[in-house]
Amino acid sequence: MEALVLEQKGVLAIREIELPLEVGPTDVKVRIHTVGVCGSDVHYYTHGAIGPYVLREPMVLGHEAAGTVVEVGSEVRHLAPGDRVCMEPGIPDLSSRASKLGLYNVDPSVRFWATPPIHGVLAPFTVHPAAFTYKLPNNVSFAEGAMVEPFAIGMQAAARARIAPGDVAAVIGCGPIGIMVALAALAGGCSRVFISDFSAPKLAIAGQYPGIIPVNIGERNFAEVIAAETDGWGADVVFEASGSPKAFAGIFNLVRPGGALVLVGLPVEPVTFDVAGAISKEVRVETVFRYANIFDRALQLIASGKVDLKPLITGTFEFKDSIAAFERAAAGSPSDVKLQILLGD
Amino acid sequence: MEALVLEQKGVLAIREIELPLEVGPTDVKVRIHTVGVCGSDVHYYTHGAIGPYVLREPMVLGHEAAGTVVEVGSEVRHLAPGDRVCMEPGIPDLSSRASKLGLYNVDPSVRFWATPPIHGVLAPFTVHPAAFTYKLPNNVSFAEGAMVEPFAIGMQAAARARIAPGDVAAVIGCGPIGIMVALAALAGGCSRVFISDFSAPKLAIAGQYPGIIPVNIGERNFAEVIAAETDGWGADVVFEASGSPKAFAGIFNLVRPGGALVLVGLPVEPVTFDVAGAISKEVRVETVFRYANIFDRALQLIASGKVDLKPLITGTFEFKDSIAAFERAAAGSPSDVKLQILLGD
Amino acid sequence: MEALVLEQKGVLAIREIELPLEVGPTDVKVRIHTVGVCGSDVHYYTHGAIGPYVLREPMVLGHEAAGTVVEVGSEVRHLAPGDRVCMEPGIPDLSSRASKLGLYNVDPSVRFWATPPIHGVLAPFTVHPAAFTYKLPNNVSFAEGAMVEPFAIGMQAAARARIAPGDVAAVIGCGPIGIMVALAALAGGCSRVFISDFSAPKLAIAGQYPGIIPVNIGERNFAEVIAAETDGWGADVVFEASGSPKAFAGIFNLVRPGGALVLVGLPVEPVTFDVAGAISKEVRVETVFRYANIFDRALQLIASGKVDLKPLITGTFEFKDSIAAFERAAAGSPSDVKLQILLGD
Amino acid sequence: MEALVLEQKGVLAIREIELPLEVGPTDVKVRIHTVGVCGSDVHYYTHGAIGPYVLREPMVLGHEAAGTVVEVGSEVRHLAPGDRVCMEPGIPDLSSRASKLGLYNVDPSVRFWATPPIHGVLAPFTVHPAAFTYKLPNNVSFAEGAMVEPFAIGMQAAARARIAPGDVAAVIGCGPIGIMVALAALAGGCSRVFISDFSAPKLAIAGQYPGIIPVNIGERNFAEVIAAETDGWGADVVFEASGSPKAFAGIFNLVRPGGALVLVGLPVEPVTFDVAGAISKEVRVETVFRYANIFDRALQLIASGKVDLKPLITGTFEFKDSIAAFERAAAGSPSDVKLQILLGD
Repeated sequence: MEALVLEQKGVLAIREIELPLEVGPTDVKVRIHTVGVCGSDVHYYTHGAIGPYVLREPMVLGHEAAGTVVEVGSEVRHLAPGDRVCMEPGIPDLSSRASKLGLYNVDPSVRFWATPPIHGVLAPFTVHPAAFTYKLPNNVSFAEGAMVEPFAIGMQAAARARIAPGDVAAVIGCGPIGIMVALAALAGGCSRVFISDFSAPKLAIAGQYPGIIPVNIGERNFAEVIAAETDGWGADVVFEASGSPKAFAGIFNLVRPGGALVLVGLPVEPVTFDVAGAISKEVRVETVFRYANIFDRALQLIASGKVDLKPLITGTFEFKDSIAAFERAAAGSPSDVKLQILLGD
Repeated sequence: MEALVLEQKGVLAIREIELPLEVGPTDVKVRIHTVGVCGSDVHYYTHGAIGPYVLREPMVLGHEAAGTVVEVGSEVRHLAPGDRVCMEPGIPDLSSRASKLGLYNVDPSVRFWATPPIHGVLAPFTVHPAAFTYKLPNNVSFAEGAMVEPFAIGMQAAARARIAPGDVAAVIGCGPIGIMVALAALAGGCSRVFISDFSAPKLAIAGQYPGIIPVNIGERNFAEVIAAETDGWGADVVFEASGSPKAFAGIFNLVRPGGALVLVGLPVEPVTFDVAGAISKEVRVETVFRYANIFDRALQLIASGKVDLKPLITGTFEFKDSIAAFERAAAGSPSDVKLQILLGD
Repeated sequence: MEALVLEQKGVLAIREIELPLEVGPTDVKVRIHTVGVCGSDVHYYTHGAIGPYVLREPMVLGHEAAGTVVEVGSEVRHLAPGDRVCMEPGIPDLSSRASKLGLYNVDPSVRFWATPPIHGVLAPFTVHPAAFTYKLPNNVSFAEGAMVEPFAIGMQAAARARIAPGDVAAVIGCGPIGIMVALAALAGGCSRVFISDFSAPKLAIAGQYPGIIPVNIGERNFAEVIAAETDGWGADVVFEASGSPKAFAGIFNLVRPGGALVLVGLPVEPVTFDVAGAISKEVRVETVFRYANIFDRALQLIASGKVDLKPLITGTFEFKDSIAAFERAAAGSPSDVKLQILLGD
Repeated sequence: MEALVLEQKGVLAIREIELPLEVGPTDVKVRIHTVGVCGSDVHYYTHGAIGPYVLREPMVLGHEAAGTVVEVGSEVRHLAPGDRVCMEPGIPDLSSRASKLGLYNVDPSVRFWATPPIHGVLAPFTVHPAAFTYKLPNNVSFAEGAMVEPFAIGMQAAARARIAPGDVAAVIGCGPIGIMVALAALAGGCSRVFISDFSAPKLAIAGQYPGIIPVNIGERNFAEVIAAETDGWGADVVFEASGSPKAFAGIFNLVRPGGALVLVGLPVEPVTFDVAGAISKEVRVETVFRYANIFDRALQLIASGKVDLKPLITGTFEFKDSIAAFERAAAGSPSDVKLQILLGD
């Protein structure tokens, strides 16, 4: 099969590669249609590693994918050839202690697409467990289907937050993940979601959604804005989605007494944490690692019309131009949220 | 003061009555502007009692109220004369065991407007604890302010349900409370809310809201609709808002394994409950009694535009016509959701 | 293999039967040592059916078992031949929607030992998924290992209750399950557990545990006892473990405002439920179906010494006498809690 | 009245001081019997301040107190003169937003005994709200009653942890608070509690309780011990009770995937926090600020015999020797857990 292969740090190639395509009894074979370009794909391209995950041999990129079922295993009941689907990119051991608890995302043995040494899906076909393959409702396009994966991270954050209806949320960082978190928090029960960044173009993208209120922290102090908008009480939930250690300074000034802080962004450097600030308000801190049991409910929200991800797709490339897509993503325009690559037709 | 007094079962009068108007240090005095007519007000009018609460002497009706602060006690800080407000009609003992737990709605010593022998607020003024008086945001009208109370019941139901983002909900009963529950569930994180009734006019009112899907159970089986719409899985949350014992037959067929049933409606007769049906799916059953810590977040959702209660106000009366309002409410048109009475100008 | 076979209602035989003993890659083969006699085993013996589960062909009984691993599949890592183990008797589809959520007990496709048509384990050997086979700590005997299954039901009830440290609990029904619930609630954080029954011998067994307070409801009113012991507040958690519809009359008088009722017992007849009683205290009702993710923590409590199940084993039989064991169980002495059958030596 | 007055940093005096003793309608007047010496009392003595709380004028010390009611206000129903009681030392505004939510401990306006400028209770009498005064069960002594306050911190930590029955806990730090946390976690549902420290005498005190397992981290690595004792899985709940920034290095190695970290200790310096370590296991982090709604359940556990605090009282002083008590506490013997001062007789 011809796939987009990251040969080594900085070197991409569209070339033939052999990938296993045997369909087991509980698997489905999917013809890939659309794949989104994720920041982690780009990071492997530009840096060759993310933390402990180091590229040591050529690897196919891509883990945000939608396509069409072309074959199903003998025991598969809920899917059939022709079904349009999207796929959850992590494959856990379902019999592990974490999976039995419903926490399959933190199963240490999980195999995740495009995380070395596991191949991704910027390729014509993939074989995947049916249990992690989700049928797209009729009114959900392939492009939206390929957005479910990044949206699922925002959804997991909203789920961990345990939002109560009407909560006010504050999101730190208006990158793709911050926007996904804001949309999920809003659809997930918040009345208003304030989102902060230094980048006016990024904030403009978020601000087009009613209920999401952009705050340019180059101009205004975020904690002061939140205080002014909540009678000095603070946000019920604060989401850290920037991954910047600087975001942690004074972060508890944003939170109401008894509120929650949800950590989504992954800082690479050590973070200084204000334990006294957290304790004096008895803040609950939740952390988010990918997602579990989220894809189906993300699809429900997209299909219902409550969440519209289409405006976030800011560029679409043919597969033959996929290296150009990665170069544009690596260049990093603040007006880009999500680039997608089309493999099907 | 001239108030709407329920003299005895079936006998209403607009007449002078003496009400206490002393403003304590933590109280506010409010000029009443708008009062909604609630089913319980009507029930006292037509039956003279609700369960253990029996009208024994003349009582002012009305507990869904908005108005303007005209005087504040010496210790009140968050309100000032001129503030437009709505009021939570139950006054608990804040030092009780239940109140200290945050469950002031189930404090046995709570005093609730228009519940014998406590007077309601269909009168020019009332004095109320500032702690249970909530400032209306600028874009929330008196009419909407007087809708906060019934909406708060829906919100309490949505809060008790512990909705996860994207949940599918089913609401049994499309009366005023059923609609409030559906709106709160939708704003509170559900992707879709199915609501059932036998009355086409009632369902038409609910169906005007995108995301709320009416199901006429004179024509279709509710459990079959839910099964068809959820791949046979069931609703994540079912709200019982009809108060009809018949609704309990087969109710667990609506719920998914591990889902929740929230009881809002209050059946007057005994109910037959399918314990085996609940257990075999390990359903969690929550119950709802009025509301606690809800008014502020209800106002947030109304002010944000996520919830629009205005279409539910189907009739507005001058105070001098308030007996006519009660007669219309007692007659019970399926096209009526909420009638309101104006005291201010 | 020679097994205890329920040929048909009322007819037991110790005889040869062919059982599948192929060890798959994720399975273990276990030599059975001890099997407890459960009320459901006895019910199939005496009635030939439980609800929808009807005995239609001969079935091996027994689902409370401990033994020794004699063979492990090629992918099994956490167990080895010679390990002393107990087994969770339900085998779910781990890729089902319920299992992925961590709720594998309510997976509709679960296969459960000694529930028609699935054979139980009153036989020399069984083959079982390693994921549902738990190593016994060194200080836990086979007899205790075979008690983990019934204790797990009590543990599931305690888990669903969400006990807060120091809670006061009330358990209705002092049969084997009631006692298990009481022990789990006490070990699980309660300060005191009141347990009610009409049978003095049953109550005497429960009362030997410090912290469990027996209440003979032939002599005293349970709600009055609870009120007296809690300053009129009520129990934080009430467990219904009798399965008697009569227990539901006035049951909410036992619960404190905002407390919980946990339904463990399975009434065969319809139950009349006091919805108004539940709502006026905003009681949360939880239901319990078997258990999930409990065996490991049950073993922790037994091994730690916090829970001593040994006094509840009131009779032990050789396998050759197992029909006598069933006859004694069917006769139903109030002094018996658990009878066990030894297959190993 | 003659009280123990902290005149300024380092200067204690037993001398006359005028304290308000007017009994309001919801207050009680209590003759103080026993007062424990807390680390914070000692810190004000030795440093004159704790964080933002600075001693600016003479202040009576002491906030862990038990005594006898001698007078009750006109509206007090649940207490009477002669009742033996202990008192919750923080007095919140019960009508605040936090208090209405049940989170009165994080009400910013709370007034807390012996926190400048609020006087403590090392004095013959105090007047206190009846709502925060708790009757001692007959079998709970004054000495135990004065231990409820420090134990309540451990209980709050156990409550925030949301312990599931059978959880394994790890406690970092074996000072008085660490021991209280360990006892509360054990009584609150844990099967085993491992507690770490460098001090052998402190560990010996904790180790006398069955179920609490001391680990000397001068000799063994705590994470390795926990891994060995949990098959490499980790503790379900980790409590940080040392307040040492060093404790945060590698702290997530102690926690199981999906487990919880509860922060009780208050580090004075900034803490470096391993966000990636928390996220990769999706750890929930809870924080603890004093306590709310805990005293009654703490008393239940003490009265039931599940928690025995008496061995932790390592010295008792007459009031006339109270300065000597503070000097001994300031000297800090590792064999001392709690010193108490007797005012009554």
